[in-house]
Amino acid sequence: MLSCVGYAATAANAPLAPIAFERRDVGPDDVRIDIAYCGVCHSDLHQARNEWKNTIYPCVPGHEIVGRVAEVGSSVARFKKGDFVGVGCMVDSCRECTSCKEGLEQYCEVGFVGTYNGEDRQGRGITFGGYSSAVVVDQAFVLRAPDSLDPAAVAPLLCAGITTWSPLRKWKVGPGQRVGIVGLGGLGHMGVKFARALGAEVVLFTTSASKVEDGLRLGAHEVVLSKDPEAMAKESGRFDFILDAVSAKHDINEYLELLKRDGVLVQVGAPEEPLPVSVFSLIMKRRTFAGSLIGGIAETQEMLDFCGEHGITSDIEMIRMDEIEAAYERMLKSDVKYRFVIDMTSMPASA
Amino acid sequence: MLSCVGYAATAANAPLAPIAFERRDVGPDDVRIDIAYCGVCHSDLHQARNEWKNTIYPCVPGHEIVGRVAEVGSSVARFKKGDFVGVGCMVDSCRECTSCKEGLEQYCEVGFVGTYNGEDRQGRGITFGGYSSAVVVDQAFVLRAPDSLDPAAVAPLLCAGITTWSPLRKWKVGPGQRVGIVGLGGLGHMGVKFARALGAEVVLFTTSASKVEDGLRLGAHEVVLSKDPEAMAKESGRFDFILDAVSAKHDINEYLELLKRDGVLVQVGAPEEPLPVSVFSLIMKRRTFAGSLIGGIAETQEMLDFCGEHGITSDIEMIRMDEIEAAYERMLKSDVKYRFVIDMTSMPASA
Repeated sequence: MLSCVGYAATAANAPLAPIAFERRDVGPDDVRIDIAYCGVCHSDLHQARNEWKNTIYPCVPGHEIVGRVAEVGSSVARFKKGDFVGVGCMVDSCRECTSCKEGLEQYCEVGFVGTYNGEDRQGRGITFGGYSSAVVVDQAFVLRAPDSLDPAAVAPLLCAGITTWSPLRKWKVGPGQRVGIVGLGGLGHMGVKFARALGAEVVLFTTSASKVEDGLRLGAHEVVLSKDPEAMAKESGRFDFILDAVSAKHDINEYLELLKRDGVLVQVGAPEEPLPVSVFSLIMKRRTFAGSLIGGIAETQEMLDFCGEHGITSDIEMIRMDEIEAAYERMLKSDVKYRFVIDMTSMPASA
Repeated sequence: MLSCVGYAATAANAPLAPIAFERRDVGPDDVRIDIAYCGVCHSDLHQARNEWKNTIYPCVPGHEIVGRVAEVGSSVARFKKGDFVGVGCMVDSCRECTSCKEGLEQYCEVGFVGTYNGEDRQGRGITFGGYSSAVVVDQAFVLRAPDSLDPAAVAPLLCAGITTWSPLRKWKVGPGQRVGIVGLGGLGHMGVKFARALGAEVVLFTTSASKVEDGLRLGAHEVVLSKDPEAMAKESGRFDFILDAVSAKHDINEYLELLKRDGVLVQVGAPEEPLPVSVFSLIMKRRTFAGSLIGGIAETQEMLDFCGEHGITSDIEMIRMDEIEAAYERMLKSDVKYRFVIDMTSMPASA
């Protein structure tokens, strides 16, 4: 077994603290990765604090993992020691259902195995995530990362990146389209970068006047303050596609009204309470309201390759492992531009 | 001018009563139709009673019109005297916007001209509908009806028919798909017939045990009582497409849960209050919630041709013109199988 050090929550109200644990030995199809950086996703906080009521303790969060390959199993030909690789939200799936066969493992009908708090399919217990020194992952769920990019800034692509990339591709966003991105956070700022790089005319919607300048810098052609009714009214019926990355409660009908006939609004932020939808707004212009969950493995590779070609990474703030609780508190206030990333050299050598 | 007799509402609380009025002379592009039958749509009642707060009185409802051509204008080559024709919800549109050019006049960006309570584009006042002896309509909005079908039972195809046909075609419903129809009324019963004729496996959802037998007779392969939680649970994640024809308040999330990954639920019934939508349900299987409004002229002709080939008509109850108020009261109780149609020979010769 592989001895690891990580940071774990041991109860909903306990701060994350160092933990020693073991990972499986490298099997024929496995890749062992020395973790260099791990992004901090809001899901990490939800899970650590048992806000979804399904956390199994101890819980080592983290699903925006990048690092170098340290060892490969006997059947692994695609990766070799020293390769720069990534692991996202999934480390396994059934691989046999229609979704898996279509490369949409995130919709696996049996349920994908989460990178943390997931149940291993070979009965080896509960998975531990990327807030740790190393990880062992089946090669089918390991991504090749572009060497040309800043490795720390690649980490958030594995969740925030693919979550926005997947719907932009699924609904064929590109040149000639007017595309809205709602909310400038970890997801939203990647949405702006991708939509722009895909050739669309990009409009960022934000509640914060302080984010206007950043929105333009990140690639938006225009920034609209969503609290300004006149500015919103001017945008009515003008959008082909809107990506809504807001997970707080908000009036979705304001954004549905901005869609053209046959326009599509895709929600990637997940508000806890149901959102009231005006059916009239959908009917009168045959508008679509849809959701999208992260992305498949092949699609994640496609996104990473695209990022390499276009020099796209996440805007990050680097933290030390022992700063994670302070980072969570700032994240709760949306006080991060635009993703925290843990520098894994700050992990203690032992717990 | 053409002297006509019709039935009109003169105020929100006044019962419909005979009215004498004039229609325009037949212009070069016009078709004059002697109305044989007119279907009774719930919209007629909403408009007559000013429930949408936009009714201009007097108001002659009716937009499920069939009859025989009585006269054609000098530029009309497509129709001749005696032809069996229909007119639906629209009698004009701008014809220049993207939607009109794509044959989607129902989404005309200027706004289509409704068959009643619409504003004529040539400044000839407010349009009067099919509860009348005759109508004069631009040839571009006149449909050819199949002579092989019972004319009275064709009338409801012009609204209830096309409203269900259009989304079934837009989302490519066909063989190999499991399709749900929610609600067995004027719209729903056409949805069942069309989905079956298009080759899908059809499941009707109804709250009424009394409608099970009818659902099967109309073409459903199965009927599920939506108030039975066990029966509903069995259908979870099994549907490619669901057409929801219920305009009363109802829990849409129960039906979204029945969709497969990438499944689509289209609302054609229009509840007044916003429907709370669980975003989680959309995200976890990339489901789509959309709306659809009647259908374009070319699509309406396609639907009528399909009905002619497949012997499809509406199930109707025939009424006399002076029974309209009683029919409205029964319609409010959903006590109609499945569309009232007015026999226009019952119209008084003068008001």
